[in-house]
Amino acid sequence: MPAKEFETIAILGTGLIGSSLARAIKAQGLSDNLIVYDANADVRKISEELGFADAVASSPQDAVKSADLVILAVPPAQIVPVFNAIKEDLKPGTLVTDVGSTKQNIMDGIVSELPPGVVFIGGHPIAGTEDSGPRAGFASLFEKRWCILTPGDAPKSALTQLENFWQALGSDVVVMEADRHDMVLATTSHLPHLIAFALVGTAMDMETVTRNEVVKYSAGGFRDFTRIAASDPQMWRDVFLENRESVLEVLGRYIEDLTALKRAIRWGDGETLLNQFTKTGDIRRRIVDAGQDSNKPDFGRAKP
Amino acid sequence: MPAKEFETIAILGTGLIGSSLARAIKAQGLSDNLIVYDANADVRKISEELGFADAVASSPQDAVKSADLVILAVPPAQIVPVFNAIKEDLKPGTLVTDVGSTKQNIMDGIVSELPPGVVFIGGHPIAGTEDSGPRAGFASLFEKRWCILTPGDAPKSALTQLENFWQALGSDVVVMEADRHDMVLATTSHLPHLIAFALVGTAMDMETVTRNEVVKYSAGGFRDFTRIAASDPQMWRDVFLENRESVLEVLGRYIEDLTALKRAIRWGDGETLLNQFTKTGDIRRRIVDAGQDSNKPDFGRAKP
Repeated sequence: MPAKEFETIAILGTGLIGSSLARAIKAQGLSDNLIVYDANADVRKISEELGFADAVASSPQDAVKSADLVILAVPPAQIVPVFNAIKEDLKPGTLVTDVGSTKQNIMDGIVSELPPGVVFIGGHPIAGTEDSGPRAGFASLFEKRWCILTPGDAPKSALTQLENFWQALGSDVVVMEADRHDMVLATTSHLPHLIAFALVGTAMDMETVTRNEVVKYSAGGFRDFTRIAASDPQMWRDVFLENRESVLEVLGRYIEDLTALKRAIRWGDGETLLNQFTKTGDIRRRIVDAGQDSNKPDFGRAKP
Repeated sequence: MPAKEFETIAILGTGLIGSSLARAIKAQGLSDNLIVYDANADVRKISEELGFADAVASSPQDAVKSADLVILAVPPAQIVPVFNAIKEDLKPGTLVTDVGSTKQNIMDGIVSELPPGVVFIGGHPIAGTEDSGPRAGFASLFEKRWCILTPGDAPKSALTQLENFWQALGSDVVVMEADRHDMVLATTSHLPHLIAFALVGTAMDMETVTRNEVVKYSAGGFRDFTRIAASDPQMWRDVFLENRESVLEVLGRYIEDLTALKRAIRWGDGETLLNQFTKTGDIRRRIVDAGQDSNKPDFGRAKP
């Protein structure tokens, strides 16, 4: 039975992540007073119907005023503005955290604005699906997934509380500097999403290949990319704008590497291609060995 | 009970595709005399042990000399050389086909060399997994998958025979011009593989992000790319060199599109990003609706 680190918990934003958090908190019995809020009235109504929290507040200020833990689960670009809208209503001793996919900008925006006695620790659970909204959430989303915390100068006691909280949801917690987080995630998540969005766009714009053909023959490789290119557009726009410097750095390198492969193809340089394609297989084995993916062919995907 | 279109069938190359074909032919009872050959002695030995054919020949010439259907299931760049090595041993009336991922170069290389009475029709089953070798094959690989045939000027009767053959293995057959095939596949398969190989390479070369971190946080998007970047390096080298013109065309467009997104990120142009990310979601729905992928979140991938 996990300790209740926080008496009252407020979650602002009940999309995929926020609603999964609510379900997981109740499933683990981590709070008897879980209050949620979403800026979208329809989402508030659905959240009420789904009943994954003890109460749905009618304003963000109402949601947070008695909270011991506030979780900002809104899209990345809204995290700092939402914090500014509630900061006057926080009681001293409240711990505020977030679940945004970028960290340095959020730390910079919030830490300087903290009222006395309020602590902020950045958070990022590496978990999600291509679906979004309150109906898409589920309690086990964070199980066996990494959660990165960026405490900055926050007190050690608050960090321990938040680590215990995420561990109670089944996550493996890692503590990191915000700028390092942003570069690691630019590489492992932001760049993969950007190149998938771009590929789907390029294919749609081909005059010589119809969209029906793209759909029909997508099993040849294309379909894997469409899954992540179907992720929430607004969230991803925010991610690229909020983590601009790191994304531009890895994207610049990527375009160079791709251009080098293009040159090898043009000049018939099979050796360069073979070397490149051989070295990349190793990472797959390590990901499967580390339990980060299924080792079944085709992800164990069922035949349609 | 499907008609036996071919008395004796020879398959040259018993990797993933060749060995799956052998298993499928026997499973469907399409030949009582199925002969296979592989240039690699170890692969021949494994093929013998696995027993998916009636006989394992000791030379490609022996394998094909009495065959009514010859299937060239070797890597793309070897298809024309292997054909040239066996063409003198083919009996008149033999139908030759292949399973290569590129078609125009192969048609150009083979059709002009055909002995009298021998017919060639290009073939490409859009099926596969990231695994390779004779042990990776399975009989149902082609079920409900597209198989593209490029008959060129081959007689209609031979095309009908080959269509019946692939349909008996469970495939949906499409007939296409070779150059159109190459452009469609450059878009839906070759470019996706190239950008996945490139991404994995870029990530491995980052000095500021360790390989352990790449593996650890791969669930954020990266791991999907590693699956296809773990595909057979030699085959993919051949594909890019054999389908050079079409790949350079779509790759050029892709780099332009990616550079435009890079520019939008640099200049904080959220509208361009949002428009791009919104239009790409539609293709995913169509792929799922067309039965070309699982609609379960995360491909229905089991938690590790």
